Amino acid sequence: MTTEPILLTPGPLTTRIETRRAMLKDWGSRDPAFIALTAELRTRLLGVCNGGATHEAVPLQGSGTFILEAAVVTLIRPEDRLLVLANGAYGERMIEICRRHGRQVEALRWEEDRPVDPTAVAEALAQDPSISHVALVHCETTTGILNPLEAVAAAVAAAGRALIVDAMSSFGALPIDLAATPVAALLASSNKCLEGVPGLGFAIVERERLAQAKGASPSMSLDLHDQWRGLEANGQWRFTPPVQVVAALVEALRLLEAEGGPPARRARYQANFDLLADGMAARGFPLFLNRTLQAPIIATFRPPGQRPFSFDGFYSSLAERGFVIYPGKLTREDSFRIGCIGALEPADFKRLLAAIDDVLAGAEKA
Amino acid sequence: MTTEPILLTPGPLTTRIETRRAMLKDWGSRDPAFIALTAELRTRLLGVCNGGATHEAVPLQGSGTFILEAAVVTLIRPEDRLLVLANGAYGERMIEICRRHGRQVEALRWEEDRPVDPTAVAEALAQDPSISHVALVHCETTTGILNPLEAVAAAVAAAGRALIVDAMSSFGALPIDLAATPVAALLASSNKCLEGVPGLGFAIVERERLAQAKGASPSMSLDLHDQWRGLEANGQWRFTPPVQVVAALVEALRLLEAEGGPPARRARYQANFDLLADGMAARGFPLFLNRTLQAPIIATFRPPGQRPFSFDGFYSSLAERGFVIYPGKLTREDSFRIGCIGALEPADFKRLLAAIDDVLAGAEKA
Repeated sequence: MTTEPILLTPGPLTTRIETRRAMLKDWGSRDPAFIALTAELRTRLLGVCNGGATHEAVPLQGSGTFILEAAVVTLIRPEDRLLVLANGAYGERMIEICRRHGRQVEALRWEEDRPVDPTAVAEALAQDPSISHVALVHCETTTGILNPLEAVAAAVAAAGRALIVDAMSSFGALPIDLAATPVAALLASSNKCLEGVPGLGFAIVERERLAQAKGASPSMSLDLHDQWRGLEANGQWRFTPPVQVVAALVEALRLLEAEGGPPARRARYQANFDLLADGMAARGFPLFLNRTLQAPIIATFRPPGQRPFSFDGFYSSLAERGFVIYPGKLTREDSFRIGCIGALEPADFKRLLAAIDDVLAGAEKA
Repeated sequence: MTTEPILLTPGPLTTRIETRRAMLKDWGSRDPAFIALTAELRTRLLGVCNGGATHEAVPLQGSGTFILEAAVVTLIRPEDRLLVLANGAYGERMIEICRRHGRQVEALRWEEDRPVDPTAVAEALAQDPSISHVALVHCETTTGILNPLEAVAAAVAAAGRALIVDAMSSFGALPIDLAATPVAALLASSNKCLEGVPGLGFAIVERERLAQAKGASPSMSLDLHDQWRGLEANGQWRFTPPVQVVAALVEALRLLEAEGGPPARRARYQANFDLLADGMAARGFPLFLNRTLQAPIIATFRPPGQRPFSFDGFYSSLAERGFVIYPGKLTREDSFRIGCIGALEPADFKRLLAAIDDVLAGAEKA
């Protein structure tokens, strides 16, 4: 391959060259130029979810798991009780984070191919008044299922509890309007639908809630209250920020705005997904999920039933042709995943399907 | 300014363009190409400190503070007791991390202009058999002082305790030989003397000690044992790695080798420092430290005594001329700092001194 491979994954993913070129500069992390860049980052993140009037954006070094854990240790106190709505690996991860930190946690679980049911959530909250917080994964990357954020948020708000949303795989593409949807904290990272590079997570937290979280976190690095206070005090990060990753994310946010914001991005991803799902179905690879439950972010496919199939062989044959796909994460079935996000268009998925035809033809001959 | 500013800071710092260009590529984090890059990273980090026979290199997402905290929660158990040797802000930070996590900690303190005294360390360990671990900051970035690693390591080993070294500001330039110096864990980050970009820390830990640390960390993100096991299991990171930052660090490590390794890098930094310290002394800015105690990494200067001096004005005047210096961090005195590290040579410091002459001449006229 002379050209670079196309990444069809849940991230890190294929980014635009303008985004990567933003990393060619060195920045002094305490210099006014970088302070201005950080301020732009925080303002743009709030703009993506319409949170400027009520919420604060707090970026944090590290991967998505770091920001999930930071939200748990900063926002859930030992006397609180979290109900995690789980239908995949990322809900389970939130439960494990709570357990390790001795935070009280309960789970309400669904099968991996079923969305979270807001009625069941309302019932669980009515039955257990000790639950103070609820956690929802907006789009479960395990399968690609879309959970009903607005309905769950309404149920949680009606019961007077606080909702924490893992929006890792949805932020920037699926619509989230914090002025209309009651969410205490929204968590996401730089390298998914925002199409930045990895190295940074962020929390969008209700201002009052963040202000009241002083001293809650046993972790210094993961303390979102202190991180916020530091940023507010002088515009600087408490600890060395990944300056190039920040610069790339700001450039990616400018490109998101230029594209037309989340609605335009969702439309592009939906076109990618539709072309992919139709094409794979025609080639004998069924979607794992009922298509109506599917977010246009990442698709889980079952192997074709009618002939032997090796994921490792399929992966490396596609990689040789310049397409990097992703292993499955289902607990009970063989599967693989293909991401629809990143700087990709339907034309890229047409080329992918042609490469798949090529691989399948080769396998039949062999 | 049409050219980029020169960063005279403790990091993020001025890197080589080859290092930044290594970030122009997208990488699939579970792809064989990135697995090979991670393996090269870990091998090269061990090579820098001659630790391959005894130690493991475990990279972690985040800044230097993240890797310090990860070492505390993974390697210090609640029944252990850590003695921190403190002569600056980074020793104090280690103490605060322990306190927040409920780890038993004591401090042995020196004034900021005095190095850690190995004899006092030996005495403290003889007097208190409950101390299990000792922490030393190799080069305290607060002042730039060099602490005597080899002598402290010998004292700690003679007393049968384990030494944790914050080598954040020394790793890659000041010699550290783990085959000759007994060190349980060495901690550093990507963006100082290795001349990578920020976003990554790493721990170099005795293999046996790491293997025994299973289940110790209450933090999932900061668990060095689990991070290591994940890397050993399939060569992949547990959680999304900052792929471009990793690529930049590997390129920076290749460039370190090409330069002649840590001895050549130290010699370059020493030449930078000597030119700077001599030039500043000639212009009325005394070094804060006795020069014999100084590491050639970052220099703390006092303002000139004979005339009024404003750091903010001096900073912005130099910034206008393309040089970004750094505020001081002394607890008791006015000061500022100028870093000698990064992709800089004595010629850059000659240009800095000329710019300082220009600023001072302007200030006299005004």
